[in-house]
Amino acid sequence: MNSEIEELNHIMIKYIAALKVLETQIEIINDDFQYIKKYNPIEHIKTRIKSADSILAKLERQGREFTIDNVINHVNDIVGIRIICSFKQDIYDLIDLLRDSNMIKVIKEKDYISNPKESGYRSYHLIVEVPVELINEKTYVKAEIQLRTLAMDLWASLDHKITYKNDDVNKEISNRIVQFSNEMMDIDDRMSELIEKKKKLEEGDK
Amino acid sequence: MNSEIEELNHIMIKYIAALKVLETQIEIINDDFQYIKKYNPIEHIKTRIKSADSILAKLERQGREFTIDNVINHVNDIVGIRIICSFKQDIYDLIDLLRDSNMIKVIKEKDYISNPKESGYRSYHLIVEVPVELINEKTYVKAEIQLRTLAMDLWASLDHKITYKNDDVNKEISNRIVQFSNEMMDIDDRMSELIEKKKKLEEGDK
Amino acid sequence: MNSEIEELNHIMIKYIAALKVLETQIEIINDDFQYIKKYNPIEHIKTRIKSADSILAKLERQGREFTIDNVINHVNDIVGIRIICSFKQDIYDLIDLLRDSNMIKVIKEKDYISNPKESGYRSYHLIVEVPVELINEKTYVKAEIQLRTLAMDLWASLDHKITYKNDDVNKEISNRIVQFSNEMMDIDDRMSELIEKKKKLEEGDK
Amino acid sequence: MNSEIEELNHIMIKYIAALKVLETQIEIINDDFQYIKKYNPIEHIKTRIKSADSILAKLERQGREFTIDNVINHVNDIVGIRIICSFKQDIYDLIDLLRDSNMIKVIKEKDYISNPKESGYRSYHLIVEVPVELINEKTYVKAEIQLRTLAMDLWASLDHKITYKNDDVNKEISNRIVQFSNEMMDIDDRMSELIEKKKKLEEGDK
Repeated sequence: MNSEIEELNHIMIKYIAALKVLETQIEIINDDFQYIKKYNPIEHIKTRIKSADSILAKLERQGREFTIDNVINHVNDIVGIRIICSFKQDIYDLIDLLRDSNMIKVIKEKDYISNPKESGYRSYHLIVEVPVELINEKTYVKAEIQLRTLAMDLWASLDHKITYKNDDVNKEISNRIVQFSNEMMDIDDRMSELIEKKKKLEEGDK
Repeated sequence: MNSEIEELNHIMIKYIAALKVLETQIEIINDDFQYIKKYNPIEHIKTRIKSADSILAKLERQGREFTIDNVINHVNDIVGIRIICSFKQDIYDLIDLLRDSNMIKVIKEKDYISNPKESGYRSYHLIVEVPVELINEKTYVKAEIQLRTLAMDLWASLDHKITYKNDDVNKEISNRIVQFSNEMMDIDDRMSELIEKKKKLEEGDK
Repeated sequence: MNSEIEELNHIMIKYIAALKVLETQIEIINDDFQYIKKYNPIEHIKTRIKSADSILAKLERQGREFTIDNVINHVNDIVGIRIICSFKQDIYDLIDLLRDSNMIKVIKEKDYISNPKESGYRSYHLIVEVPVELINEKTYVKAEIQLRTLAMDLWASLDHKITYKNDDVNKEISNRIVQFSNEMMDIDDRMSELIEKKKKLEEGDK
Repeated sequence: MNSEIEELNHIMIKYIAALKVLETQIEIINDDFQYIKKYNPIEHIKTRIKSADSILAKLERQGREFTIDNVINHVNDIVGIRIICSFKQDIYDLIDLLRDSNMIKVIKEKDYISNPKESGYRSYHLIVEVPVELINEKTYVKAEIQLRTLAMDLWASLDHKITYKNDDVNKEISNRIVQFSNEMMDIDDRMSELIEKKKKLEEGDK
């Protein structure tokens, strides 16, 4: 397994390069969006690199051996970017731009906003491929993009702090956490409506 | 007035120094808190420097002339730091630490959490003084600290995006924004209760 | 001319995007180089964006009018990256990698290392083109890459501090600055020889 | 020894706090210097934290046991800051300001500029003490400040790359490295003279 760990270090060069390319391209889209629409859809961005341990754990949960081929083909979120938006509509606007991009190829989508996880988790996940040019190799590398609103992120931060180091958190607490998620979703929906209404009022002013 | 602008540039050296001292000390408190309690009360920090125009506008609203003395004595928030916490209890814990600090002297407090502004704005404001040692001068400089939860910050972000460039936003919209603020506050309270409950459950486990 | 300034702001979006793409790609090359050769050719990197004033001044020196077409076609260094290397050999290694790159297209080279400017200035300049994907446009944008050693950079820093705000610096001073440049070049050459010699000694050890 | 490692982690909180305080104060001095003299004495700053392994190795070289008392009393450079200046005179100007500071207490000086190490290493080292206010403790913590010119730093970078992973570097190479150090020193002296001469010329202009 040591040689797999070594080879993993090798391919991480590619994944980290892909993460840089992806972050740069999303910054470019955001700058251009802001220029065109005088409106900034992204509140902030976080990047993430999966540790060797987490990659191993993910393959184990899938019942797969730890080989480099399995890593490349079955762990799609080795690197990822989280995009936090103010409103739900911003997320859908960004997804449309990502789908239209020639450089970022969307190869899989999971809508945990319309279909939240049992825990209450909501976000929109995309698996994408970006071109990476290394010294002796030109290739495409997979990465994950998570999009969520400030309210979904607030909930995730709560969920993380509540369940951390407490595996058998009692039933009552987890029920309440799901309930918070639903309330957040409701607020998100109404805030999105309000901002759309305001945009229309402004257009009416012209 | 040009000489005032020049002198303003001069005193800004002190205010920017104060902001650096304040940010450093809050990072130190946060690091130490995390070490002692294995818990991180601060989600993120933002620093802010008031522009010459905003300083001028503030004095005008106060009906005061633009003199350096008036700037120093009547504009307390020339520089400021915003601290975003996960839960309301984190805010009160941090305020206690700031009140106990010898270095950061709290000279004024405004509790817009218990007494929100009419707009729905909630945050806890402190005016503080920090020691600054320049090359030829040792002095104390005022700065503002704003503390708020993720939910209060989410609301502020909404409020900023909704009212921006729309001075006569209609009554209905502003009413809804106040209502969002109340709902956020309610969620904050219940999340704070939940995290305190969880802490007690964990202590009971020991 | 105001509408030109406005349009200049518009095209700056592209140039700033190009700078980001270029910086990212150079970081990727550096990371990969370090992985393959266990040696880091780059000491540090600085990015630079030309101000509207400097663009105007450059066109004036060229005897050209301030039009967007002239900016795009005749100002090749609107954005640029400066790469500082330890040794001269590192510069030539990097230039080879840049010439081999499919993404970064080298369209012009100026070797101020072999042929220093009269002032004593030494650096290797490349004008390159990089692909930029904006929301509604896919295009190629020009940028400048300057490569220099630590010794050349030290000299440039001296030159900048000596000549700054002193247009008629006397003949004696400028002669000495040229002499420093020659001495620096001599040291660079001998240091490059020494590091190459050491690399061969190490290979002999194997 | 494990409990010593744990306690080391504990005291590192203080040392990292001291490093932040020191870096902030040096930034403040630099900003103020720049404002007063319209001249920036610092090219760049690097901070450094000694690893547990290096602390252990240092105590071993001193023939001392690994106890927290020995760490605190006999390892003065657990954290440090390196200040790179353009010219030698900048270093002496900064040292004067540091000696005059009430906040940063200079407790030891080593002048490796006038008295370089056998290897050719040149820098000015200060051991200082800075005040640190933690949550439950107010204390003074030691740190090291290294000051060097760009030329000394260039030499150190060469020395590091040449001797790295090559313990028995042959006599000829190390002789040449010492020689480079002497040549660099000579250039530094003449550049310092030149900049002083230029300052006088400018004063004569007035």
